[in-house]
Amino acid sequence: MENSNRREFIKTVGMGAAAIGAGIASNAVPAMAKDEKTFKWKMVTTWPPHFPMLGESADKIAEWVNEMSGGRLQITVYAGGELVPALGAFDAVSQGTVEMGHSASYYWSGKCPAAQFFAAVPFGFNAQSINAWIYSGGGMELWEKLYAPFNMKPFLAGNTGVQMGGWFNKEINSMADFNGLKMRIPGLGGKILAKAGGNSILMAGGEIYTNLERGVIDAAEWVGPFHDLKLGFHKAAKYYYYPGWHELGTAFELMVNLKAWNSLPDDLKAILNAATYKSNIWMLSEFEAKNNAALRELIDVHKVQLKEFPEPVIKELKKLSKEVLDEQAATDPAFKEVYESFLAFQKNIYGWNKMSEEPYQKLKYI
Amino acid sequence: MENSNRREFIKTVGMGAAAIGAGIASNAVPAMAKDEKTFKWKMVTTWPPHFPMLGESADKIAEWVNEMSGGRLQITVYAGGELVPALGAFDAVSQGTVEMGHSASYYWSGKCPAAQFFAAVPFGFNAQSINAWIYSGGGMELWEKLYAPFNMKPFLAGNTGVQMGGWFNKEINSMADFNGLKMRIPGLGGKILAKAGGNSILMAGGEIYTNLERGVIDAAEWVGPFHDLKLGFHKAAKYYYYPGWHELGTAFELMVNLKAWNSLPDDLKAILNAATYKSNIWMLSEFEAKNNAALRELIDVHKVQLKEFPEPVIKELKKLSKEVLDEQAATDPAFKEVYESFLAFQKNIYGWNKMSEEPYQKLKYI
Repeated sequence: MENSNRREFIKTVGMGAAAIGAGIASNAVPAMAKDEKTFKWKMVTTWPPHFPMLGESADKIAEWVNEMSGGRLQITVYAGGELVPALGAFDAVSQGTVEMGHSASYYWSGKCPAAQFFAAVPFGFNAQSINAWIYSGGGMELWEKLYAPFNMKPFLAGNTGVQMGGWFNKEINSMADFNGLKMRIPGLGGKILAKAGGNSILMAGGEIYTNLERGVIDAAEWVGPFHDLKLGFHKAAKYYYYPGWHELGTAFELMVNLKAWNSLPDDLKAILNAATYKSNIWMLSEFEAKNNAALRELIDVHKVQLKEFPEPVIKELKKLSKEVLDEQAATDPAFKEVYESFLAFQKNIYGWNKMSEEPYQKLKYI
Repeated sequence: MENSNRREFIKTVGMGAAAIGAGIASNAVPAMAKDEKTFKWKMVTTWPPHFPMLGESADKIAEWVNEMSGGRLQITVYAGGELVPALGAFDAVSQGTVEMGHSASYYWSGKCPAAQFFAAVPFGFNAQSINAWIYSGGGMELWEKLYAPFNMKPFLAGNTGVQMGGWFNKEINSMADFNGLKMRIPGLGGKILAKAGGNSILMAGGEIYTNLERGVIDAAEWVGPFHDLKLGFHKAAKYYYYPGWHELGTAFELMVNLKAWNSLPDDLKAILNAATYKSNIWMLSEFEAKNNAALRELIDVHKVQLKEFPEPVIKELKKLSKEVLDEQAATDPAFKEVYESFLAFQKNIYGWNKMSEEPYQKLKYI
């Protein structure tokens, strides 16, 4: 819609010329007497202290809110295990032990299976589409409804972008190669692996490297090049597979205890809300800007063998994913409700992707 | 990186267990005595009043800043032509006539050709990649350097996502079909059309419909389905082409007069900054969520013929685009500096796209 002459917009687009000086009074509210009370809140997280991107994003939310509020909303960030166990964040916020938690909603699949849609499900959305669904496609309303019984209000707070498929010590040439494969891949991805004949092995992040090296597991997924290089997985596995079909744009969340939220004056509510938007776009931009250099280092310096999952394998994993999601929907009405919204929006965005992001991705080869 | 057991993060990832209660003191700043002065600012825009998405986004920035600041920063939004001519926004902010302007930086190609990179250039970035370049890839520093001599500080404030290629009354089957083609396509896209033998015709947005219908022009580009349906172009043209090779993720800007910016206390600076991030992600999410329904209506109800530009045509347009950008870089050192950063980041992000967004876009067909 670029315009290059001054006359262009003076005649407005079929809306008639606007009267000079009639400026939109978009904020007729006078300067309000503000509640000057200072709030000191705690944010628990599921991350190691200052963990790159994820912990950093929690730190930044606290920093930005402090700046914006002129110190009236002070948030102290706790790493996983400092105040409550990492995966105790949901309960701590729900029960009001702390005011906030920074995490990814698929960690709560045991308490609230539908929450997984607001982080990542296999063959789900990329970052741009999960944002569009949650912010503008009805997703946020469903998420709020889902968390309300737990006394919490959710916000989107970050995204990894498309992840990698994981590190493997044997090649995946067909579905048969999953038979007996021992892989660190939790959650829905793990259920799908099990359907394919493999074994999903649970372990702490810090144990992956050693278990891969010693052959206790054959494969493991983590995030993507930027994180994976730091964790040194290339020293313990030969093949680095893509794409991360199980996590195509994992979103992070800020959970806020509803009673604490309701205690905030309107300006601090608006500040906290805006900080989550900033955090969301900040994290994705950082991952996008930094992944390629890490990938190049893995390939060029550390001689990692980059591999794409064969199309028949992806096709079968997609079929198994649908089975797993359908099975859950059949027994869980809340899951079904969110799943239906997810599927409808997926159809919607896939339709538009065909004319937009799909051809965009092809332009580099033309 | 999904985790499903509680032990997972208690052993942190190679960083040693964190001491309980050692919470990150991310905001040790005490509640500050705030400058309670109220600022009443003017924002001029290049949009018709409350124009969908674009004008709305300007209105929302004002609304959010008002909320977050508790009324201490009140912004009145003016449509194009109300206070100054639409394309007078740059000068008005630069000269301090008003404090802010909401626009797209390619409108200033006459004064500052390099500014175009921060809106859209042909075969440039999509929304996700321009965000990554500007926020995390050095783009913002270059943009600030570019606007500093004009006494302005720029912010990213929105994105249309991938646009459509435009409305045509004749088919484009080969480059020969551009010979003598009269098309409303301004800016760099227009220069490329001219190189291809066509005629770039300038006209106001409100004149496009009539000129298309009467055959004064053969084709016109605007934005995408959501906007184009509202403007009724389907009543004046038969073919709707994609992709919008000339605008693959057009970004919008908030320009702030530097002296005005420097007069703000730190909390209001942080608030204004966060509002632009929110606006950026809000607008893209709205376009992404709404384009498909508009496209379906155009095709199913209004029987528009959707067409993809043939690959040899795209290939040639891409070659001409490179010529146009290279020619400008050869005569303009500021343009050259930004172009080099753009090209380096494009190489970087294309490398990562191959393992991430490219395979993501293919999954729907597997």
